[in-house]
This record gives sequence, C-alpha cells and structure tokens, in this order.
Amino acid sequence: MKTELSQRLGIEHAIFGFTPFPAVAAAISRAGGLGVLGAVRYGAADDLARDLDWLDAHTEGRPYGLDVVMPAKKVEGVSVAEIEAMIPEGHRQFVKDTLAQHRVPELGPGEESGWRITGWLEEVARAQLDVAFDHPLKLLANALGSPPADVIQRAHDKGLLVAALAGSARHARHHQEAGIDIVVAQGYEAGGHTGEITTMVLTPEVVGAVDPLPVLAAGGIGTGEQIAAGLALGAQGVWLGSIWLTTREAKLGSPALLRKLLDAGSGDTVRSRALTGKPARQLRTRWTEAWDDPASPDPLPMPLQGLLVAEAVSRIQQYEVEPLLGTPVGQIVGQLNAVRPVQAVFDDLTRGFERAITRVNRIAGRD
Amino acid sequence: MKTELSQRLGIEHAIFGFTPFPAVAAAISRAGGLGVLGAVRYGAADDLARDLDWLDAHTEGRPYGLDVVMPAKKVEGVSVAEIEAMIPEGHRQFVKDTLAQHRVPELGPGEESGWRITGWLEEVARAQLDVAFDHPLKLLANALGSPPADVIQRAHDKGLLVAALAGSARHARHHQEAGIDIVVAQGYEAGGHTGEITTMVLTPEVVGAVDPLPVLAAGGIGTGEQIAAGLALGAQGVWLGSIWLTTREAKLGSPALLRKLLDAGSGDTVRSRALTGKPARQLRTRWTEAWDDPASPDPLPMPLQGLLVAEAVSRIQQYEVEPLLGTPVGQIVGQLNAVRPVQAVFDDLTRGFERAITRVNRIAGRD
Repeated sequence: MKTELSQRLGIEHAIFGFTPFPAVAAAISRAGGLGVLGAVRYGAADDLARDLDWLDAHTEGRPYGLDVVMPAKKVEGVSVAEIEAMIPEGHRQFVKDTLAQHRVPELGPGEESGWRITGWLEEVARAQLDVAFDHPLKLLANALGSPPADVIQRAHDKGLLVAALAGSARHARHHQEAGIDIVVAQGYEAGGHTGEITTMVLTPEVVGAVDPLPVLAAGGIGTGEQIAAGLALGAQGVWLGSIWLTTREAKLGSPALLRKLLDAGSGDTVRSRALTGKPARQLRTRWTEAWDDPASPDPLPMPLQGLLVAEAVSRIQQYEVEPLLGTPVGQIVGQLNAVRPVQAVFDDLTRGFERAITRVNRIAGRD
Repeated sequence: MKTELSQRLGIEHAIFGFTPFPAVAAAISRAGGLGVLGAVRYGAADDLARDLDWLDAHTEGRPYGLDVVMPAKKVEGVSVAEIEAMIPEGHRQFVKDTLAQHRVPELGPGEESGWRITGWLEEVARAQLDVAFDHPLKLLANALGSPPADVIQRAHDKGLLVAALAGSARHARHHQEAGIDIVVAQGYEAGGHTGEITTMVLTPEVVGAVDPLPVLAAGGIGTGEQIAAGLALGAQGVWLGSIWLTTREAKLGSPALLRKLLDAGSGDTVRSRALTGKPARQLRTRWTEAWDDPASPDPLPMPLQGLLVAEAVSRIQQYEVEPLLGTPVGQIVGQLNAVRPVQAVFDDLTRGFERAITRVNRIAGRD
C-alpha cells in the first residue's frame, strides 16, 4: 500500500495508527505502518521521555510519530490554577452530585489521577516537545488546529513532517496556510474530536481544498475494505485510532472498559462535549447522558471542562463504575469483537485491502 | 460498473438514481443506470399513472423503478381527518406564528399544495401501487421499513425486485426476514431519513448482516470516487439522490431553492424532525432552526408532523420565502455547484469511478 507520502516517510503501508500506548505504537511501526503515540495523557515530560526511549528501543529503527494537543493561540501568562478558578461552582456541584448518585468512591490518599488532561495546556505540550525533539520522530501531529508557527518551524528544522487534524475544508485550508505538511481529515464517525461532516464527504472535500498537500482519511476506518474506500476518496493514507484499543498490547487498565468496547455496537457512541468541552465521539454512558440532558448545566468550553471532569473520570476508571465508564472511540467500535495482537489486526487490514481492490477491479471489468 | 445485481436488473452501471422528477429518472435509465421515481409527492394516483406512462415512452425500454413510502404496520380504519385531529392546537399555533414572523403569504384560492405529504399514508401508497403494477417496473423500493407482506408478494409475482432502506444492521435484518431482495444502507450523511451511522461504517455492517442479499450504499455519494468507495465497502451498487437535484431535467419549481442548493456547503444541512417527524437530513433553514430550538414544541411523530407542516411548506415554496426555504438533501450538497444535464453528471460518475480504480490499483502496486 504505497503512496507518495508513505514513500516519503519510508513506511511500507500508508496506515497511520494513533494510540496512547507505546507498545501499540511500536507494534504498528514494526508491522510496516506508522505508529503515532498520543502525548495528551502524559502529565510529566519525564514520563514521556521514558516512553520515547522505550519506543526507540522497540521500533527496530522504523519511523514513528507523536501526537500532541496544542492550541495555536497562546493564552499568555495564565496558570492552571487561574484557569481552574474560572469553573463555576454549579458545575462542580453537578459533578459531585452525579458521582454521588452512582456511589463513585473517592481516590485514596496518594492515588494519582490516571486520566490526565493537562496535556491540553500549552505549557505542558511545550515541555513535551522539548523532550520529543531529542528523539528520532518522523511525524509530529497536532489534534487541535495547527501548532504554533515556532513549533512548526522547529519540527521542520529537525526534518519532521507536521500533520494537523481538520473536521472541515475551512480548517484544512487554515492548516495549509500555517505551513503544515499533512492534513488528517477527521470525519464525523471518528473517535475523539470530530465535526459534522462524514469521512465519505469530508475526505474528497479536504483533498480538493489543500491540493497538493497529502491528506489522510480518518473516521470509520477499521478494516482493509474501509482503507480501500478512504484511498479511493483521494487520501494518501489512512489514520486509524479506535481499532487498536482492544489489541493485546493496549493497556486500557480496566477489564470492565475492555468488555464494554467488545460488547458495544456501532450505535453505542455519542458525539458529546462532556469530556473536553468540544464535541468528541465516545462511548455513550450515564456520564455523557447526564451532561447531554437539557436540564443539566452546559459543558464548559475547553480547557475548563477537561479540568473540571479530570478527577471524576479518574475515579470512574479507577473503581470501574460501569454505567459511567467510557472512552473516546469511533463508530467502528461495533467491529471490535476480540482481543488480538496488533500484528494480527494489521495483517487483516492489508489482506482486506487486497480483497477490496480485487473486488472493485472485478466490478470495473479489469480482472 | 457491473455487479451480480446490475446484471440481474439488466443495467449497464450499478448506479441507482432516486429522484422525484420523471425526466430525471428517465435520463438516468437512458444513461445506463436505474432511475427510481419517488412517489411520495404524488397525491392522486392519476398523476402517477400519467407520469409512469411518460416514463414508459422515454426510457427506451431501459429498466426503471418506483420508490414508495409505506409503513409495514397498518393503522386500521383511521382516516386522514382523524389523524389530523390528533395534532395539538399549540403546534398549529407555532406553525402560524413562525409563518407570520417571516410574513409568509397565504395560498391563493384554488392554489394547490405543491408539497404533498399524503403519500406517507398507506391508503394513498396502495392506490399508487395499483397503478404502478400496471407498468413495466423492475424495482419497487420502500423508504420506510419493509413494505407489507402482501405488497412484497404482489411485487414478486410481477417479477419485480423489492428494496428497502435501512439505517442500521438491525433494520436491515428485519427487511431480510420480511422477504425483501435488496437493502439500501442509508448513511447518516444522506438526504432524507437517516440514522446515526455513517456510510463508511454502515455499509459493511449491513453487508455482513444480510449476506447474501445485495446491498446498495447510500449517503455521501455524488462522485465516481465516492462510488468506488461505496463498492469497496462491499456494496453491489450505489443509491444516489441529492446529486440529481440540480440537474437541468429536475423541476425544483423554485429558482431561489436552486440557488440555495448551488450555494450550500457540506456543513449547511441538518438532521431534523421538522419535516416529517422522523430525523431527516435537509438544508438548514430558519424553519428547521425554529423547530430545533429547545424552546419550541417538539416535532410530532410521523405522520402527524408531515400533515401539520404540509401547507406551510407549500406556502414557503410557492412564495419562495428564502430564509425558510429548504429541501431534503445530503451532505454532498457542497458538491452541487452547477446546473448540468443528467447525462453529463452520469458521465462524470463513470469517469471518476475509473479514475479512482486506476488510483487504488497504483497504490496497491497493481498498475
């Protein structure tokens, strides 16, 4: 599965795998794709440094990337404490009440919040980048608009390609003007932050909008047939996130969450502002339902909502409070039905792709 | 573009074109696809009979189909008047107020409602079928669940294939159990009634659910590249509706509406219950915004909402009250940028399909 972009990055297959788990990222790169490690869960830059060292030792010299979450616009001189102070008391009370209603235990003394949200904050992301640029990354992706200009410049100076996610052709053109190299067109069906336009419509629209920049199709892709569809739409590669969540190498840290992912159907996700303040697709839970109820307070804008709910989400995960337990995931969650090694999942992708190509050739009368 | 299904129907290309306009349906069939005439706008069976006669004279013997809107479950012995009486006064007042706010004129004496909704009612649909079965249809599609068992039987006795639209794998399995021959998997991005699952995810899910029944991919398809994507997902054909709305042969009857369609971007549609009571994708207008406002009355269930708003929609169209003027259309509305003959649109579809196949073959190393 070779495109101009995959050849430029030196990967065998134009499959980009986003994951918060280093072992998954390494396995994707070893399988011939490009593993992209999500940095948002790392609070301390030291933890990230340790995991990037581990990646260097386990990718057999294959290319890998890092995904950060940096706002393009800097809020000058505002501390986390000052941002926290902007959260209305009524919202804090709503979180308390919802947790109490479901008898969610408090974290024990010294227990750390497993679900970190501080990676959204620019000061944290910048500390992460200082670490990351010491490692042989090939790709820097930003999940939240274009990275700041100086970051793009630094990445280019180091020989990295810079990617940014976009949910509309307008966003994609902004990225292009900002000087990024690759647009990830993230369709409505994708896990995490998404717009309203689906992959089928968004991909060709973005391809046309930023030509000749390469575009990756994201959202709704978890089989080789879906990869073939994304590439038929003009993408130079595909960006997959959800499919890796139930791989053997993933460290979800919650058997109950794993079970929920394996059991969920394609209709069991919702695009909700409950987690970060921006619409993000995730499992539908009592938690998202509570926030999406018209009688509840409106979720706060990013980054307030993430700060507001971080401890709650950690408690829900720590104690596996099943009705509230969720995670960002796309509509392909219906295809996640078994725990398998990354390599097996990857082999299925490439085999399914070949099958789809054979099939469309037959339809086109080219067999 | 040949599949088992296209060969069974005797069409050159596995492209199914849904349209409310006979001239468009005929042109699609003449171009080598299968034109499917929407019957819902026909109030009187005589009008339908006249247009089917016209189709017979203008399809050069090529196959065509009819799309009706029949509920599988019959509401026994309830008249239109009795159903009308179920509409709450507050809802009628809301319609009046919204029309007054936008100074929408009343219809003149003797002026007929151009936007008819009575085709939703089973008695009307049955009268349409009595007419339709006298014509050489090859396909009977139902936009609202499986048709009643006796209708499926009658269609099969006449040698027709029966198709039904589905927005989920569960719906699709119900259709299969009911004995239909083809499932149209209608993704979230489609115009008209849609579920929450996008074409990229829904198509393979439905293909897997009803195997070996043939599936048509619908929603988000308006270019040959999107056709290739739909077929790569396992469909035996594609079902296109929105793309024909701005063809030269279409009789929208409103220059202002045509302009709105040509100007709209992919983000200018909304899935709303404002028109029929079930979620249907359409242009976002002041009308849909009024109904979708949390402060407004909730739209009524089908068929009440359609009866409630029919006259209002006719007045809005008749007098081209621009802020309120809308139509069902999918997210591909962003691709509708010129008025062109059906044949030119169709040629683009087949050429784009060939281009996409060449492209994916190159990516797969099969060139």
